[in-house]
Amino acid sequence: MDLRTRALKLHKDNKGKMELVSKVPMDSMEDLSLAYSPGVAEPCIEIKNNPSTIYDYTAKGNLVAVVTDGTAVLGLGDIGPGAALPVMEGKAILLKRFANVDAFPICLDTKNVDEIVQIVKALSPTFGAINLEDISAPRCFEIEDRLRQEVDIPVFHDDQHGTAIVVGAALQNAIKLVNKDVSDLKIVINGAGAAGIAILRILLQLGYKEIVMCDSTGIIYKGRENGMNPVKENVASLTNPSNLTGSLKDAMTGSDVFIGVSVANLITKDLVDVMNHDPIIFALANPTPEIAYDLAKEWGVRVVATGRSDNPNQVNNVLAFPGIFRGALDVRATDINEEMKLAAVQAIASLIDDSDIREDNIIPDAFDDRVVTAVAQAVADAAIDSGVSVLFQPALKTN
Amino acid sequence: MDLRTRALKLHKDNKGKMELVSKVPMDSMEDLSLAYSPGVAEPCIEIKNNPSTIYDYTAKGNLVAVVTDGTAVLGLGDIGPGAALPVMEGKAILLKRFANVDAFPICLDTKNVDEIVQIVKALSPTFGAINLEDISAPRCFEIEDRLRQEVDIPVFHDDQHGTAIVVGAALQNAIKLVNKDVSDLKIVINGAGAAGIAILRILLQLGYKEIVMCDSTGIIYKGRENGMNPVKENVASLTNPSNLTGSLKDAMTGSDVFIGVSVANLITKDLVDVMNHDPIIFALANPTPEIAYDLAKEWGVRVVATGRSDNPNQVNNVLAFPGIFRGALDVRATDINEEMKLAAVQAIASLIDDSDIREDNIIPDAFDDRVVTAVAQAVADAAIDSGVSVLFQPALKTN
Repeated sequence: MDLRTRALKLHKDNKGKMELVSKVPMDSMEDLSLAYSPGVAEPCIEIKNNPSTIYDYTAKGNLVAVVTDGTAVLGLGDIGPGAALPVMEGKAILLKRFANVDAFPICLDTKNVDEIVQIVKALSPTFGAINLEDISAPRCFEIEDRLRQEVDIPVFHDDQHGTAIVVGAALQNAIKLVNKDVSDLKIVINGAGAAGIAILRILLQLGYKEIVMCDSTGIIYKGRENGMNPVKENVASLTNPSNLTGSLKDAMTGSDVFIGVSVANLITKDLVDVMNHDPIIFALANPTPEIAYDLAKEWGVRVVATGRSDNPNQVNNVLAFPGIFRGALDVRATDINEEMKLAAVQAIASLIDDSDIREDNIIPDAFDDRVVTAVAQAVADAAIDSGVSVLFQPALKTN
Repeated sequence: MDLRTRALKLHKDNKGKMELVSKVPMDSMEDLSLAYSPGVAEPCIEIKNNPSTIYDYTAKGNLVAVVTDGTAVLGLGDIGPGAALPVMEGKAILLKRFANVDAFPICLDTKNVDEIVQIVKALSPTFGAINLEDISAPRCFEIEDRLRQEVDIPVFHDDQHGTAIVVGAALQNAIKLVNKDVSDLKIVINGAGAAGIAILRILLQLGYKEIVMCDSTGIIYKGRENGMNPVKENVASLTNPSNLTGSLKDAMTGSDVFIGVSVANLITKDLVDVMNHDPIIFALANPTPEIAYDLAKEWGVRVVATGRSDNPNQVNNVLAFPGIFRGALDVRATDINEEMKLAAVQAIASLIDDSDIREDNIIPDAFDDRVVTAVAQAVADAAIDSGVSVLFQPALKTN
């Protein structure tokens, strides 16, 4: 059977991928009287009198809402909330499998930003965290920003930050192979959607300076008139210090790193040929990358990463989001802030010892069971140190 | 340990009562590529192209949203969405335990009826049915009515209909013991909240005619001026054919059946003494009934039912809602209509053979495993016969 047939069969045979089960026995009148009426009134009263005990008596503290409006699902675009459900169920079972986090799909039949914010706020009292998923740019930025301000639990848009964190980690290791000066490294990001913008932001924080961003119109620069929006205006102000204009090829001329979060089979040989020596290409379009792994290697690219599990160096969000939620929930963080994201980058990158870094080994495998533990610990520590943990205060610095 | 201590310990030891687990394996790259990217795109595309296949490829067809705003939780009143969560988790695990229905708590931080309707509509594409829970009257009536009209999946308010169905079944069996004429049977319902109104409606459909309803102001009658609202005006028009006025005692004088969904310890000996011979009392206030079982028996009540598991004749919604959702989901019903509710009444009542009906045995036990099967089958058949099953057409009648 081909992948399509196998995937449909898996989903159909099981009628979806997730189920809700009880953690307590329910086999006797005693069980019923404790878990339901009349005993259940006791935790209700406790929570009413002391709201923070909801973390003791309910599933809230381990529960993530996977929220989508179905507008930017995988590479399929705006397919709606119902058709997005298989992805959200998938996310839920990955959170359970990799980090023992309970998660539930909230697929919303509205594209109205105000309404999405209002609904997620109304749902938030019983969740421990919010994962935004597959919401189209630039709407996703406003939804995330507003929710981070308006709810008291962490909000994380995995398509942005999960991808950005793994890219950041992979790049940290890749550049160790090429002996180039980080502050001079010329990076091209192609694709100004949710993932591209987030990658840009995290690379700036990691100290990369020479970044040029392209969209389907070409290089984004200060003063460009076509296809701009407030997010891209911001990109123009943060990037492209030489104020380059022109096409993707102009951007790539002399560049050291290409990061694509765009469309399949975009990178031709002439684009590779204009890059600097020892080029690095992260071709992350899914399921078909901007350039096939083997072809890129054949054309002389030094380090290649893709989103595919059948190639080396898979940039897979599953390296990041399970540990990030585990860490944030463990210390009851009120936010997933920049410190926590950067801690996740370093945790992932450091799982490959410098002596083990090779062209085909810049990032751990998705099933490397050290990953979630390392990421969760680093994220939890960063939450505490940055003062967003409800449970733990920052350690006193002694210097 | 007392009940309170045991109940708190159960909830705290387990951090709530429910978890979300995977139904598919997730131990290899192959598993990951089928359940998540890239394979998950295939069911997404199928659902986009043919929306009804969401029932094949996702959990929707077996998934119930347990929706509350926390305004009328148990006997605790308006304790809010967070404090209501233990009850909703309890409901979810009961649906799983008794009917293998997956259910998830949706606790909304808003009391605005329009907003609740809007949110539940926005959430509805990925659920198979909606269970409204612990929403205060009369708001619950409008929310239920509007959702039944505006969403294409069944909507059921268990506090109303679940209770009413079990009361209907218990009464059908209780009256077989007293040799009274059903059409003359004088019934007093005390409490005009969600449960009381629903009990009234189902008893009218079951053919009972002489019903008088009381609230804290006394008998509800046409022309009463105090404490009325549109729902109670409707009650006045449907009940009390002799247009009685006065107190609860006036209503109970000469009555055959008292059904209380009101407050603890309300029924004194003088109220029992004014009832007709062979009185029947359903004292359903929780956790403390309007009259204790043993006291009622001591004072000469012929048949007594309460909501308590430690007395005979427990009127427990768990006899109804699991099978009702199972039946409705099995035939993909678009509604839970009156035919389906009446079918559930008869299914529950008929599980006690006439020869087995006794004063202390008018209704099956909550753990009688025949119940869910019988109710589900009866509800599914009634859904088909009444034309609300998407999967099955009514059988051709041959007469």
